[in-house]
Amino acid sequence: MCRWAAWQGAPLFISEILSAPDHSLIHQSREASKCKTAINADGFGVAWYDQRPEPGLYRDVYPAWSDPNLRSIAEQVRSPLFMAHVRASTGTATSRNNCHPFVQGQWAFMHNGQIGGFEGFRRKAEHLITDDLYLTRKGATDSEALFLIACGLGLDANPKGAMEHAVDLLETMSREGGIGPHMRCAAAFTDGKALYAVRYASDDLAPSLFYQWSEEWQGWAVVSEPYDTDHGNWIEVPKGSFCRFEGRHCEITPFVPAQNNTVRHFETAFR
Amino acid sequence: MCRWAAWQGAPLFISEILSAPDHSLIHQSREASKCKTAINADGFGVAWYDQRPEPGLYRDVYPAWSDPNLRSIAEQVRSPLFMAHVRASTGTATSRNNCHPFVQGQWAFMHNGQIGGFEGFRRKAEHLITDDLYLTRKGATDSEALFLIACGLGLDANPKGAMEHAVDLLETMSREGGIGPHMRCAAAFTDGKALYAVRYASDDLAPSLFYQWSEEWQGWAVVSEPYDTDHGNWIEVPKGSFCRFEGRHCEITPFVPAQNNTVRHFETAFR
Amino acid sequence: MCRWAAWQGAPLFISEILSAPDHSLIHQSREASKCKTAINADGFGVAWYDQRPEPGLYRDVYPAWSDPNLRSIAEQVRSPLFMAHVRASTGTATSRNNCHPFVQGQWAFMHNGQIGGFEGFRRKAEHLITDDLYLTRKGATDSEALFLIACGLGLDANPKGAMEHAVDLLETMSREGGIGPHMRCAAAFTDGKALYAVRYASDDLAPSLFYQWSEEWQGWAVVSEPYDTDHGNWIEVPKGSFCRFEGRHCEITPFVPAQNNTVRHFETAFR
Amino acid sequence: MCRWAAWQGAPLFISEILSAPDHSLIHQSREASKCKTAINADGFGVAWYDQRPEPGLYRDVYPAWSDPNLRSIAEQVRSPLFMAHVRASTGTATSRNNCHPFVQGQWAFMHNGQIGGFEGFRRKAEHLITDDLYLTRKGATDSEALFLIACGLGLDANPKGAMEHAVDLLETMSREGGIGPHMRCAAAFTDGKALYAVRYASDDLAPSLFYQWSEEWQGWAVVSEPYDTDHGNWIEVPKGSFCRFEGRHCEITPFVPAQNNTVRHFETAFR
Repeated sequence: MCRWAAWQGAPLFISEILSAPDHSLIHQSREASKCKTAINADGFGVAWYDQRPEPGLYRDVYPAWSDPNLRSIAEQVRSPLFMAHVRASTGTATSRNNCHPFVQGQWAFMHNGQIGGFEGFRRKAEHLITDDLYLTRKGATDSEALFLIACGLGLDANPKGAMEHAVDLLETMSREGGIGPHMRCAAAFTDGKALYAVRYASDDLAPSLFYQWSEEWQGWAVVSEPYDTDHGNWIEVPKGSFCRFEGRHCEITPFVPAQNNTVRHFETAFR
Repeated sequence: MCRWAAWQGAPLFISEILSAPDHSLIHQSREASKCKTAINADGFGVAWYDQRPEPGLYRDVYPAWSDPNLRSIAEQVRSPLFMAHVRASTGTATSRNNCHPFVQGQWAFMHNGQIGGFEGFRRKAEHLITDDLYLTRKGATDSEALFLIACGLGLDANPKGAMEHAVDLLETMSREGGIGPHMRCAAAFTDGKALYAVRYASDDLAPSLFYQWSEEWQGWAVVSEPYDTDHGNWIEVPKGSFCRFEGRHCEITPFVPAQNNTVRHFETAFR
Repeated sequence: MCRWAAWQGAPLFISEILSAPDHSLIHQSREASKCKTAINADGFGVAWYDQRPEPGLYRDVYPAWSDPNLRSIAEQVRSPLFMAHVRASTGTATSRNNCHPFVQGQWAFMHNGQIGGFEGFRRKAEHLITDDLYLTRKGATDSEALFLIACGLGLDANPKGAMEHAVDLLETMSREGGIGPHMRCAAAFTDGKALYAVRYASDDLAPSLFYQWSEEWQGWAVVSEPYDTDHGNWIEVPKGSFCRFEGRHCEITPFVPAQNNTVRHFETAFR
Repeated sequence: MCRWAAWQGAPLFISEILSAPDHSLIHQSREASKCKTAINADGFGVAWYDQRPEPGLYRDVYPAWSDPNLRSIAEQVRSPLFMAHVRASTGTATSRNNCHPFVQGQWAFMHNGQIGGFEGFRRKAEHLITDDLYLTRKGATDSEALFLIACGLGLDANPKGAMEHAVDLLETMSREGGIGPHMRCAAAFTDGKALYAVRYASDDLAPSLFYQWSEEWQGWAVVSEPYDTDHGNWIEVPKGSFCRFEGRHCEITPFVPAQNNTVRHFETAFR
């Protein structure tokens, strides 16, 4: 199980959320020693928006806690919109190309979840990626596939609709494959302006998702799990929700992939 | 342009061919400083047969000359059949998964060459890989694709025929894509028993391929370029050739991908 | 806290002890998820004897469980004498040069333990290393310093005496520095013939050390902690002991660093 | 031989100097293929000043041209003062800890040069580092030693004097050791305010050093070798010079390490 955190608001040093002592994502990634959670030692990544429309991206395959480059970048970069992710693989080799976040033009995406039986229908799923986006596929993960499929389905024009559609397509393939859980997803993505987050599952076990407005820092923190156990201000996102954070505004609406089954028939094939 | 060397014969320390001073693959990879060749600093790999039917595999993304692990392995491992490869990428990020040799069951494969316009028909080419082999595809290179396609076409039963067929399929796709050169290939592959090598091009510029029997070491050295400029005993493999080295025996026959165009019509689709 | 395992006996695949499912060092390194132990994700190393008097050495900074090179080497190398180590750093950056085992000529050494206040007297400790050995110091750890000091004190001629002397010198420095614990040590070292192990502490908390004769594999396994919880055959080494394993023979004698305080006066200065 | 470039002036994207096509440090590092220079594939580093008094630092052991993290950081970070370095080791293993720049508090330092016979008097040279700074020594290079010695000799209060003193101490040790060249040095260092550079040698072969005012970008570029062969505006720094760049101001004065031989006698020992 992976963990992630995102920030949207006033410019904030990445280190405040990534590596501050006691209450941070890196702290979480080692928590295993205290028996609270699983270890996340199989790579990490940060994406941030600063001087350009496209995000900066730093990913590597070490445990996040042992990388001095990550520490330095987190302490130097002050950004109004960033994402950080620590990865726990399931035994396969780590590779930078399989680390989150994934970046595509102005979009960045990260994910905690699973799509049952993906390996078995990976190539079929990759068919759903448009030709030009397939050129940019570097890894082999279901997460990158989900992101690229959503990009091709119009993430720019309709972030929620495109993600619902992409999730539905992959969930349907998983159902056909017969290996569950078919879709569990806590994802965050952004075009550098608004921050979006999804909590969804095809069964009862949606990965957790929380958010919080910080008066002190003037912004929204969105996390896969609360990294600050002392503060009681984390709000749990209900299962089946789509969140949109922009400025001081937060909007939460239902996330319903299945409705696209109908919609899809009216669309022209996207490839 | 990549460089590689292979050995088949009496057990030999990998270091004799990989890292011995003055006359070795690692020496070649740095030759750039002497203006003779291009640098090969974008990863390396060795595959060797020793205690098991499957080869050992060590690959990493550093320049071969600076990796103490590689040096140690090359000095410890004494094998009757091994391959070594140094990579020069064309500007893209390096990744262990894109380093040669590639291994599949008992087979190992490495390659120097190019397939014009591959990026544009990568997904179409990946369709030629069987479902079970596609599960093992980790990188994005044309070389790995060529190898996996050949595996699916019966490398076990007919090494030459399967490789001719695979080369023909990809060369045909490249012709359809219109970007040349359509196929240039100097490859070596082995099942741990015989060592095979191919020199072929769709135009006049086949990458070089040489071999030599070593009385001193009692075996065949096969290389993309002679690493020992003093010895005058390297024999150039003619363009369009398939080589088979086993024991003291060396057999060179024509390598003719195009003939498979006919053959293919009589085969049932392999997928 | 680090973990390690060593083997001396009939040739054995490293994988039997390093990576076999359920009962291995790699399994231990991830155990954190089951709340039994701390995680060891900050690098690993293996040293083995095979074709040469000097050991082979493979070290890297990833978690041991995610490195395909390590897996391949462990499955290919069959050795009568090898060591494997997984590292848990205390927050500092990982570096190959700080990973165990350390190798010096025919000797290999690995260690779990601590020397209180070492950072504060590191340079003073490094004075105890002979000039020629100091040339080979690559990292900054107390473990490498201990090993190099012992080498200079005559590990070849008197393995036990040299290690007692080296431990005493560093323990004394730590006492002078005033930061405890002054010496905790569970170490293994070998010249490729006999396997030596030490369990010692200046206080009551010596790191654990166990050994076992395997009838099935015909050899001695020596470990910092039992990796095989089902087998009840592990024998705990008493605190303050020096072990020597050679062939089917195991000899355990007291390890008494302090006696060297006297002995030292009769020695000529080693530098 | 290493290469480096530094910038002081109006905020500039690091990529303008590090990775812009045709005229950049990364381009230089690959130039070997065009036979103009040696390859610099053994690690790289960038240090930059932005949001804090201490510099950010990103170093890694890959060839600079193949690291997507470096590319992304260089494209995102816009800084009024930064340094970039590409390394060509002399055959030893690469390590992040041996990559330039080195950072100490607010200071950053990078270097191209050599100190004859350093390995032989490394420990003696390390004695010249103060205790507290020795705690921060992570690598084994002469460059890091030179920097830490200079820090201890008062780089803050007197950048030129401290560096002259440090260079003199090491040059003297090299003379005593008898292995030349005793000192060749093209270095840059900064406290985040002014940018300093030194060109000096104990013989006739001082490594090159150039600078240029850019009207377009409003700042000073200082480089070990011109990266932009088309522009004819590079000014060569005379051998034995110390440069200080601050704002639009550039001051070049003689750099005379030997004068410190006298001065030293009047100083109290610094340790």
